[in-house]
Amino acid sequence: MSDIWLNKINWSDDGLVQVVTQEADSNKVLMVAWMNRTALKLTVQTGEAHYWSRSRKKLWHKGEESGHVQKIKEIRLDCDDDVLLLRVEQVGGISCHTGRHNCFFNKLEDGCQWVVVEPVIKNPEEIYSK
Amino acid sequence: MSDIWLNKINWSDDGLVQVVTQEADSNKVLMVAWMNRTALKLTVQTGEAHYWSRSRKKLWHKGEESGHVQKIKEIRLDCDDDVLLLRVEQVGGISCHTGRHNCFFNKLEDGCQWVVVEPVIKNPEEIYSK
Repeated sequence: MSDIWLNKINWSDDGLVQVVTQEADSNKVLMVAWMNRTALKLTVQTGEAHYWSRSRKKLWHKGEESGHVQKIKEIRLDCDDDVLLLRVEQVGGISCHTGRHNCFFNKLEDGCQWVVVEPVIKNPEEIYSK
Repeated sequence: MSDIWLNKINWSDDGLVQVVTQEADSNKVLMVAWMNRTALKLTVQTGEAHYWSRSRKKLWHKGEESGHVQKIKEIRLDCDDDVLLLRVEQVGGISCHTGRHNCFFNKLEDGCQWVVVEPVIKNPEEIYSK
């Protein structure tokens, strides 16, 4: 398969592109992460989200430990060609490493305080204890 | 008003935080941008999205030229405290500078080609010709 489509992307100086991941059926925003070329190619080839972990400096098949893989429904690219939007099925209904549905669980209330508004669905110690 | 809530945010070395903006009623992802502290404070104080334009190096009241302001419905912060999610009412139904509803109008088809799938609602020359 030709890689020409990868060249449309405006990769950062360190070869990354930002990714917003959204649950396809609920349209909830799950998380924001990064991909390099290999991660994006693997994502397309396997149909499951692969990211580049900047902290661990390695490829990361989302769900490789937890089983909470993300099945790709659609991939979009923005007007500046520098942000991808993944629309996925979130297996297990948990995308956050805290055991919550999504990573955006802190809500600003009264313009001055952060309140946790999403429940922990599964204890992270159970998720990652395999 | 105390600014303690701003200190929870994991600001980048250049004082910015990434922002994903989502339309509250449709849950569609509109755009991704950046804020500094002033932009976020103005957003909360005025109830309309303000960003930091990295290309123009200035504060940017979204819609200041086009009239397509974004009225804040909710502000969320992610698990790493380094990405904000704005849920907004998009006035005029256009958030992209190309005159489209949102910025994610390129769709990957057949795993190898980008296809524009969102229509131009209003010609950008009309939007910005005031």
